[in-house]
Amino acid sequence: MTGQGVLIGVGVGPGDPELMTLKAVRALESADVVAHFAKAGNASNARATAAKYLKPGTREIQLLYPVTTEHPTAEAAYRTAIDRFFDESAAQIAELLEAGKTVAVLSEGDPLFFGSYMHVHIRLMSRFPTEVIPGVTAMSGCWSAAGLPIVQGDDVLTVAPGTLNQEELVRRLRQKEPMVIMKLGRNLPKVRRALMESERLDNAIYVERGTMHNERLMPLAQKTDDSAPYFAIVLVTNRWWQP
Amino acid sequence: MTGQGVLIGVGVGPGDPELMTLKAVRALESADVVAHFAKAGNASNARATAAKYLKPGTREIQLLYPVTTEHPTAEAAYRTAIDRFFDESAAQIAELLEAGKTVAVLSEGDPLFFGSYMHVHIRLMSRFPTEVIPGVTAMSGCWSAAGLPIVQGDDVLTVAPGTLNQEELVRRLRQKEPMVIMKLGRNLPKVRRALMESERLDNAIYVERGTMHNERLMPLAQKTDDSAPYFAIVLVTNRWWQP
Repeated sequence: MTGQGVLIGVGVGPGDPELMTLKAVRALESADVVAHFAKAGNASNARATAAKYLKPGTREIQLLYPVTTEHPTAEAAYRTAIDRFFDESAAQIAELLEAGKTVAVLSEGDPLFFGSYMHVHIRLMSRFPTEVIPGVTAMSGCWSAAGLPIVQGDDVLTVAPGTLNQEELVRRLRQKEPMVIMKLGRNLPKVRRALMESERLDNAIYVERGTMHNERLMPLAQKTDDSAPYFAIVLVTNRWWQP
Repeated sequence: MTGQGVLIGVGVGPGDPELMTLKAVRALESADVVAHFAKAGNASNARATAAKYLKPGTREIQLLYPVTTEHPTAEAAYRTAIDRFFDESAAQIAELLEAGKTVAVLSEGDPLFFGSYMHVHIRLMSRFPTEVIPGVTAMSGCWSAAGLPIVQGDDVLTVAPGTLNQEELVRRLRQKEPMVIMKLGRNLPKVRRALMESERLDNAIYVERGTMHNERLMPLAQKTDDSAPYFAIVLVTNRWWQP
């Protein structure tokens, strides 16, 4: 008779496998099962980052989103589908935990900072022992790649998703404070308009796949097209910046 | 004749040595010189975190702040003293870089997120090759220790230092959004008053030395005194939380 397993949320950092923590690596080495989220038809980014630290033969389960996360999250059909998906994912993991397995759920960046892991965590935290291993966030990876001191002294940092409407983005940008805009993807044209309207386009740095081998980094004003992956980020500074 | 050395800003994470990244550990193993900031009379927190990864015999330089960082930063005498200190620190490091040494400067958390490293970085970045190794921030360590999903979906996160005045804290807290308040120390009584005035005290979690062996974590409303170390953090959530 085995005891209950442990649920571990493992932050794998921004993309460079070297930016995984020692604790994350050890958790993957000792986990019975490693779970990861992915869009149908795509490999998990978190799994790609962690790949070389998975023991050969480790049992893996893939949790496939039913819909794209770029869908308007306010839509009722989206909410229903995604809630059911997280319920089913949690149930699948609960079965393993009940059988005494330690289950590591991979998260890009940090598990409790815009991560899918949190939806499993809140469903299971009262039933099973849990542990969360924080990770380096994508935004830290991006401002480090840019060599940009994002905040110092009495600065206030705002981190906003590009899914906000233009008016709301403009209102926040007009505070003239440092800002990180995440989840760009198809929101980039709107984000660019908001930066122009608030007269901050010249303080905006575009970073795509920060810390990865195919990283791209440039002043947003010099980016001539509006295509961007979902995991691109815009850093808005209130100081000098030189590439 | 040796070439120029490289300046490396090394984020050592929130305090648990296991939360250092693989890249940070390798940087310490290969650095010729390791530099760290500390208050006079105190050991460097970052060095304590990194201690077991420093090779025996590594040359170290200690950069001692001339004044406490809790001093009002707006004061002219403080600005002059601290600017001179960073000028001198940069000059000392520049001499080593000119001699071809690789110098790793330790930073608690993430080097470019409220870190002292940035002041050396901006003084030397145009003269020497630099690299910044991002780290897990103290705030990630704290919300992970609390098991608190800090932001999800379309949430906006505000990160503010406790050095802001009460009115400014209240204004931001009244937005009813998730918020992280850093640099508590002697600012805690003011932060508590701002939380009461904005009716958010019941959503506030106090975390002291998150991820360290002597971590303390509790609802702020249950903390009966107002003493706090400088590196304590308050997390303000807009959702449920259970300890």
